[in-house]
Amino acid sequence: MLNQSPSNVKRITCIGAGPIGGGWAAHFLAQGYQVTSYVHDENEYPALMRLINTAWDSLKQIGLAPNASLDNFSWTTNLAEAVKDAEFIQESIPEVLPLKQALYAKLGELVDDHVVIASSTSGLSMTDIQEQCSTPARTVVAHPFNPPYLLPLVEMIGGKKTSLETVEWTEQFYKCAGKSPLVMKKEIPGFIATRLQEAIWREALHMVANGEATVEQIDQAVVNGPGPRWAMMGPCEIFHVGGGEGGMAYCLDQFGPALKLPWTRLVAPELTQELRDAMVDGSIEMTHGQDFETLSRKMNKGLVEIAKLKKQAS
Amino acid sequence: MLNQSPSNVKRITCIGAGPIGGGWAAHFLAQGYQVTSYVHDENEYPALMRLINTAWDSLKQIGLAPNASLDNFSWTTNLAEAVKDAEFIQESIPEVLPLKQALYAKLGELVDDHVVIASSTSGLSMTDIQEQCSTPARTVVAHPFNPPYLLPLVEMIGGKKTSLETVEWTEQFYKCAGKSPLVMKKEIPGFIATRLQEAIWREALHMVANGEATVEQIDQAVVNGPGPRWAMMGPCEIFHVGGGEGGMAYCLDQFGPALKLPWTRLVAPELTQELRDAMVDGSIEMTHGQDFETLSRKMNKGLVEIAKLKKQAS
Repeated sequence: MLNQSPSNVKRITCIGAGPIGGGWAAHFLAQGYQVTSYVHDENEYPALMRLINTAWDSLKQIGLAPNASLDNFSWTTNLAEAVKDAEFIQESIPEVLPLKQALYAKLGELVDDHVVIASSTSGLSMTDIQEQCSTPARTVVAHPFNPPYLLPLVEMIGGKKTSLETVEWTEQFYKCAGKSPLVMKKEIPGFIATRLQEAIWREALHMVANGEATVEQIDQAVVNGPGPRWAMMGPCEIFHVGGGEGGMAYCLDQFGPALKLPWTRLVAPELTQELRDAMVDGSIEMTHGQDFETLSRKMNKGLVEIAKLKKQAS
Repeated sequence: MLNQSPSNVKRITCIGAGPIGGGWAAHFLAQGYQVTSYVHDENEYPALMRLINTAWDSLKQIGLAPNASLDNFSWTTNLAEAVKDAEFIQESIPEVLPLKQALYAKLGELVDDHVVIASSTSGLSMTDIQEQCSTPARTVVAHPFNPPYLLPLVEMIGGKKTSLETVEWTEQFYKCAGKSPLVMKKEIPGFIATRLQEAIWREALHMVANGEATVEQIDQAVVNGPGPRWAMMGPCEIFHVGGGEGGMAYCLDQFGPALKLPWTRLVAPELTQELRDAMVDGSIEMTHGQDFETLSRKMNKGLVEIAKLKKQAS
């Protein structure tokens, strides 16, 4: 039973002092929390502080919480001390399963079981990580995108022994803490965002391998083409707008046959009636039924701002 | 022989009055050109003007060329009149090969052969389009991203009968006209940007079809995760920065094995020494050997601005 309301959390412990662990520390500090970092080796401390200071410059520009301060930061190489007063723990140690399992076994003993322990793992499953933990119900995967203080996504999923309450509590907690949590429906390799990113990456590698494009051309194609749209809208909403008044339905009916064309090396799924309906209904629901005019204004507004940024930068 | 310097072009004809043709007209007007649109059916004119006026609102915010004005726009349903004084022609009629072939046959007769004719086609090859044209050397594919007045990419490639001079002239012309031309090395289906976009799209369709993610989750994963990075940097530069001091080389050596993992349904190419070198050398060359510190500051700067935009919008 988690006895703390997500909105009442004040003290957070970040375990791990690399780019992800340090990035989380900076994010939570900017949101006004008391943050303690557990640093495995004191030699890692200077790099951690450089990272937090660099992040702080960015975070000040975006806007800090009223009570945010670097004075709210402390660090230690003593794990028991690091977690003693923690009301939430974000773990970001290296992606080595036995290391994670040993850590969660220790944390299971050290930390009251009403405190959630969230793992930044990008590839391991919580079912595996929590295996040797005596109190696994409060452990959950919460995978950020780098840098965690600038990109809001947190992909979440529990392991077999994680309680539903933990997942719901943690989702609420991240919303309070200025993040955009996404609770996945199934444990899949690479979660959602990395799968999408990896599809682009592998297609790019194929093109370079085949002499179809250079490294620079790949990047120019993204940055000057679909990239700015993806900062504002996801691929589904973009096609929903791209379909004009007819939305996603028009788009699928018009471009459905193109799914058979060799426009990427990835073979598309069969566009069944069921999949078509899921895409159409999902797009309408996601955009709250807003019409083409409204959505295309929203897209243009974002693209104008990005175009202005790029004009200033060049 | 093209007798006009790319920087001296003043009069442009846009053939086609749909979103792409109209978007091109708006872009060229904002750059200060005299623009004539050929409109196939006069009933299309009101929609064309709505599109140009909507685009103009956006273009004013980004900044117009000193001599830019909607007064520089004219239109006609007479093809011969439309192209009479053209110094450059951008063709954006429907993607139907026989229609395009018939149009290029006519244009071959109507237009002096020192004037370049560029096609916005997203899927057809210029070798096919130019087949019935008596003056094919000055015809070239120049595929924009929608909307053409906000996204700078133009993917270019000639057909078998296109002259090298035409490709080079047109590349220069687009640079003068505020676009980012990308001359492709090979004619490949979907060109470069659409292939990358299609890889993401098909992976997304698979995930929805398998109940692994909803439409909304796909979009949230992109917009809150990798999307903002793609507005500023392409996938190669992102991994080059992601590798820290070691850059792309570190990244490939570290994550090379992950190419074998089922992180997307797209099977990766073999990471040969040759491909590894192409990625590493290409990344260093593209970034002019800038170090990690410089590149990561550039990335953070862009992400801070996008985070500020989103904070304002919400």
